[in-house]
Amino acid sequence: MHTKLIILFGVDFLQYWLIAIPQKETTMSNHSSLRKDAIRRVNTLFLSAERVAEIINRKGIAECIAGVAAYIKQDFLRWNDFDKCARVANHSAVGVIELMPVADARTYAFKYVNGHPANYRYNLPTVMAFGVLADVETGIPNLISELTITTAIRTAAMSAVAAGALARSDSRTMALIGNGAQSEFQALAFHHLLGIETFHLFDIDPNATDKLVANLARIGLKSRRFSDVRTAVKGCDIVTTVTADKTNATILTADMVEPGMHINGVGGDCPGKTELHADVLRKGPVFCEFEPQSRIEGDMQQMPADFPVTELWQVLSGQVVGRSSADQVTIYDSVGFALEDYSALRYMRDVAAELKMTETVSLIPTLAHPKDLFGFLAENRGAKRPLLAAVAVAA
Amino acid sequence: MHTKLIILFGVDFLQYWLIAIPQKETTMSNHSSLRKDAIRRVNTLFLSAERVAEIINRKGIAECIAGVAAYIKQDFLRWNDFDKCARVANHSAVGVIELMPVADARTYAFKYVNGHPANYRYNLPTVMAFGVLADVETGIPNLISELTITTAIRTAAMSAVAAGALARSDSRTMALIGNGAQSEFQALAFHHLLGIETFHLFDIDPNATDKLVANLARIGLKSRRFSDVRTAVKGCDIVTTVTADKTNATILTADMVEPGMHINGVGGDCPGKTELHADVLRKGPVFCEFEPQSRIEGDMQQMPADFPVTELWQVLSGQVVGRSSADQVTIYDSVGFALEDYSALRYMRDVAAELKMTETVSLIPTLAHPKDLFGFLAENRGAKRPLLAAVAVAA
Repeated sequence: MHTKLIILFGVDFLQYWLIAIPQKETTMSNHSSLRKDAIRRVNTLFLSAERVAEIINRKGIAECIAGVAAYIKQDFLRWNDFDKCARVANHSAVGVIELMPVADARTYAFKYVNGHPANYRYNLPTVMAFGVLADVETGIPNLISELTITTAIRTAAMSAVAAGALARSDSRTMALIGNGAQSEFQALAFHHLLGIETFHLFDIDPNATDKLVANLARIGLKSRRFSDVRTAVKGCDIVTTVTADKTNATILTADMVEPGMHINGVGGDCPGKTELHADVLRKGPVFCEFEPQSRIEGDMQQMPADFPVTELWQVLSGQVVGRSSADQVTIYDSVGFALEDYSALRYMRDVAAELKMTETVSLIPTLAHPKDLFGFLAENRGAKRPLLAAVAVAA
Repeated sequence: MHTKLIILFGVDFLQYWLIAIPQKETTMSNHSSLRKDAIRRVNTLFLSAERVAEIINRKGIAECIAGVAAYIKQDFLRWNDFDKCARVANHSAVGVIELMPVADARTYAFKYVNGHPANYRYNLPTVMAFGVLADVETGIPNLISELTITTAIRTAAMSAVAAGALARSDSRTMALIGNGAQSEFQALAFHHLLGIETFHLFDIDPNATDKLVANLARIGLKSRRFSDVRTAVKGCDIVTTVTADKTNATILTADMVEPGMHINGVGGDCPGKTELHADVLRKGPVFCEFEPQSRIEGDMQQMPADFPVTELWQVLSGQVVGRSSADQVTIYDSVGFALEDYSALRYMRDVAAELKMTETVSLIPTLAHPKDLFGFLAENRGAKRPLLAAVAVAA
C-alpha cells in the first residue's frame, strides 16, 4: 500500500486511536483489496483490582464514596433515559452468577457478579465482580474494570443516598448487622455522608466483628459490639442489615423496630435470600431501586404482588415524599441495580482519566479493513511485535 | 502475622494459586484479626485478539474449526445439562449489544457481542465480542478472551455441524451470499468439514467480493463471482446467506430454491433482521439452535408461533431425522446461541493450556481474609510491587 502519511492521535484515551492513512486511489487496480484509509485501533482501558485500590488510596475513600453517590444521584434523576431490565441470573445449589446490563442513548454498562455465601470456606470473597462500559453507537467496549471493591463502594454510596432521602436528618447511631466485606464501606458512607457517629455491631461470626472493630478503630470511627441483634439495634436511628446467608432468614423482626427508625436492608437481594421478617415491611413505606427486579430479589419477595412500594428515583426527584414524619419507620429494600454500577464505572473511568491511568488490553482485533477479519490472522502470522502482556502481581 | 511457611503451587493455571501460610494460633490474642491460613490468589487467564490469532496460526485454522465443531457437538449432545436463556439485548437505532450466558453444573460462560451494520463507515467491524468462562462452584472468572475472531470460527463450525446433519452428503458447491467478515470462515468450514469444493460468491459490495476472492485464492479454494443472488445460487447444493443489514430483507426467495438444497441462513439473527422470504421457510423442515431465542431472532420471526421447527440437538442425538430424502429442501435458521460460545471458549482455553499461554489479568482482588475487603486498600497503599501492566501492541 502507498502510505503517504500516518497520523496517530488520541481522540479520547477511553475510546480508541485513529490511524489515518490517506492513499492515492487512482493507482489501485480493480482487483485490489479494500481501501485501508483509516485503521481504527480499538483499545479497552483496563482497571485491575490493584489499580482501583490505587485510585481509592490516592483520592481518599470518603471522596470516592461521595463521588460515586453524586454520580448515582445524577443518573437516578434521569431514570427514564435508561433501557432497564432485571438482571439475568444463573443459580446453582451453592450460589448465583449474574449479568446486569443497562444503557442510555450513549453508554452501555454491564456487571458480572457472583454471590457464593460459602466461599469463605475456600478463602474467597462471597461477592466478586467486574464490569464494562461500552459505546452504544459502535459497540466498542471502552473500559473493563474490577468491580469487587467498586461494588462495595457503590452499594454503600447507594445506601447513603437512600438514607439521605429517607432517614431522620438527626440520625447519629447505626446498627450494622453483618460485619463482613461490605460493612466498613457502609460505616464510612454513613459517617461521611450522613454524620453517623456510632456504630452498633453484631455478627454471628465474632471474628468478623473483631475485624470490623479493628478496621473502624484504625480509621477513627466509634463502634460498640453486641451479643445479639436485639440489643445491637436498640435505640439506633438506622439499622443496616448486610448478611450473606442464602436463606429466608429473619434477622430483624417487627418487635425490634422502633418509631423513627430507618431500615437499610442490604443483604436480602436474591430469590430465597431475605433478612427482614414480613412484618417489618408492614411497619412503614417501603422503597426500592427498580421495582420489577426488587419484587423478585428483595425482601419484598415475601409480599403479595400488590404490596405497595415506591421506586427511589421518585423520591430523589421530588415526585413522592420519602419520610413524612419523625416517628415514621422507613424501609429501603436494597438489592443492587445495574444503574448503580453504570454510575460507579463512570466515576472510576473519570478518575482514572484524571490520574492519567491509561493501561489498555487488546480485547478487540484491529483490522486493516472492517470486512477482512480473516486478514487479521495473516497479519499476525509469525508476529514479532510485542503481544499484550500481563505482568503478574508479586505475591 | 507469624508466617512460618509459604508454599506457592499452581493447582491449575486456569484456576488460582493457593498460598498456604500455616500459623501458630495459640499466640494470637482474642482481638486479633481473622486467620490468614490460605490466601487464595484469583488470576484470570487473558487471551487477547493477538493471542487468539497466534493460537489459530500455530494450530492451523482448519484444525481450529474442526476442534470447535467437535466441542460444539459434544456440548449439544448434553443439551439438557445446560441452564439456557435467550440472550439479553439492548437495542439502539444503529445496532444492538447483547449478553449471552449459559451454564452447566461446573462451568458458566457468557459472551458480550455487538451488532452494528454501519460500523464499516467508521472502519470498525460489524461484530465485536469477548467472553468469559467461570467456575459455577465459586464464581471465579477463570478466563477472559477475545471472541471476535473466535465467534467467526464458532459460527462457521456450527454451520458445518448443522449442514453435516442436514445437507446432502454429496454436496460439492456452495453459494456464499454476503462476502463480509464471516465469509472466509464459512468457506473454510464447509471445505474442510463437508468437502465443498467450489464457492459461488455474491455481495452488493463488489469490494467485499474482491477481498473474498483474493483470500480464498490465497488459501487454495476455488470461487466464482456472480452479479446477482439468483445466478449465484443456481445449481448449488448449499446456499449460505450471511449478510449484515439490520432490515427485513428477502435476499433469497422461494423461486431460487432448488430440490435437495440445504439453506444455511446465518445473517437473520436479530428482531427486524431477516434474509429469507417467508416462503423459503415453507420449502422444507426448519431447524434451529434454541427455539425460544430463534423464534425472536431468527428468520422464523416472520412465521406464526406454531410454525413447526426442530432444535438441532435432537437431530445430532438421533432423536429426530434431519433430511429424509435427497430431493428435500432443508433449512438451518442460525442465530448463534450461547452454548456455541461456551464450546468455543472451552476449546481456546484448552489449546492455550496446550500451548502454555499463561498471561493473566488481576480482575479480582486477592484478599488476606475473604471478609476483609477493606483491608485490601491498606495492603495496596503506596504499593511498590508491580501492578498489572498491559503493554500496548505496536501499531
